[in-house]
Amino acid sequence: MRVIVVGATGTIGSAVVDALATRHDVVKVGHHGGDFQVDLASPDSITGLFRTIGPFDALVSAAGMAKFATLDELVVADYQIGLSNKLMGQVNLVRIGRQSINDRGSFTLTSGVLSQEPMKGSASISMVNAGIEGFVRAAALELPRGIRVNVVSPPWVTETLIALKMDPSAGMPAATVAQAYLASIEGTMTGQVIDPRKLTPK
Amino acid sequence: MRVIVVGATGTIGSAVVDALATRHDVVKVGHHGGDFQVDLASPDSITGLFRTIGPFDALVSAAGMAKFATLDELVVADYQIGLSNKLMGQVNLVRIGRQSINDRGSFTLTSGVLSQEPMKGSASISMVNAGIEGFVRAAALELPRGIRVNVVSPPWVTETLIALKMDPSAGMPAATVAQAYLASIEGTMTGQVIDPRKLTPK
Repeated sequence: MRVIVVGATGTIGSAVVDALATRHDVVKVGHHGGDFQVDLASPDSITGLFRTIGPFDALVSAAGMAKFATLDELVVADYQIGLSNKLMGQVNLVRIGRQSINDRGSFTLTSGVLSQEPMKGSASISMVNAGIEGFVRAAALELPRGIRVNVVSPPWVTETLIALKMDPSAGMPAATVAQAYLASIEGTMTGQVIDPRKLTPK
Repeated sequence: MRVIVVGATGTIGSAVVDALATRHDVVKVGHHGGDFQVDLASPDSITGLFRTIGPFDALVSAAGMAKFATLDELVVADYQIGLSNKLMGQVNLVRIGRQSINDRGSFTLTSGVLSQEPMKGSASISMVNAGIEGFVRAAALELPRGIRVNVVSPPWVTETLIALKMDPSAGMPAATVAQAYLASIEGTMTGQVIDPRKLTPK
């Protein structure tokens, strides 16, 4: 399969690339790095990306910014970052990419555990993550030609916790999280929110 | 209690007003009607509303627009209607209103069954409704002074189904849905998504 990975240089994205590379043709997309670049907040940039890349069989998005800050700190523009980038950026990958995806192809987006398990400071991120999940559940009902869409809701990733100097013991290694994306790409499910903690290890 | 009802002239809002009126002081807010007017898509309008109304004990929002249309029909501007109005409009009622709500006051927002039970045409609405629920779960963790926030996720309302010339037998009367808002206002719960179908009848 020809698989586009948006966010290919990130912690989860690079683990997904590694997991896919042994048996698929991977097209790496980043904001700055990768084979091709895209600005998720720009529908025009996304349109240009798909025009450049051409037909493909699967797309993974492990990208998108949203602001972590307390209710007192968050101003409207902070919420807008997550809405334009992580939420509508990923919605637009499906909206625009569905024109050039092959029959029976799949989209796999990324939300996050804060959608359902919030913490102080996550109001904007929890809103955005839950919105992605709502979109995916609905969009799956309408995609034609056997095209599927799912969203992976990763728990805290070990590598991220280490980078943030937080306790890594509660985290899941990115390589394990990556298996959830493979389950979406290579399986038959659609409209699902995939929690990597609930996948049966192979 | 002094209770602000935003969307007071709508199907659900007017039923909430009726249910509250026997034992609370109700301030009716509409887009055009009501005692006071607000444009949910405008943070400035919301700021002006709270400045005019002054201190209050509870706020209900049964307002907010989002576009019902197929994936093929929805353009970016259509998604933006729901994001600016039903989603960020309600977020801003909490963000801005929390400055003038009294201790132990409550906010009760509105999402809708399409959040978790989508149908064809609901991609934008499902996204927005789920986003509201994600915000409420997270914001509840941070509100000070015993202030609470919940969201009611109404099923299809009988009166709406009749207005749309759809089969009303699957609907719930607005007066029954209104009881979910009373449970939020008069109870102690916070951070909850309240499904009126799951409330025990009194």
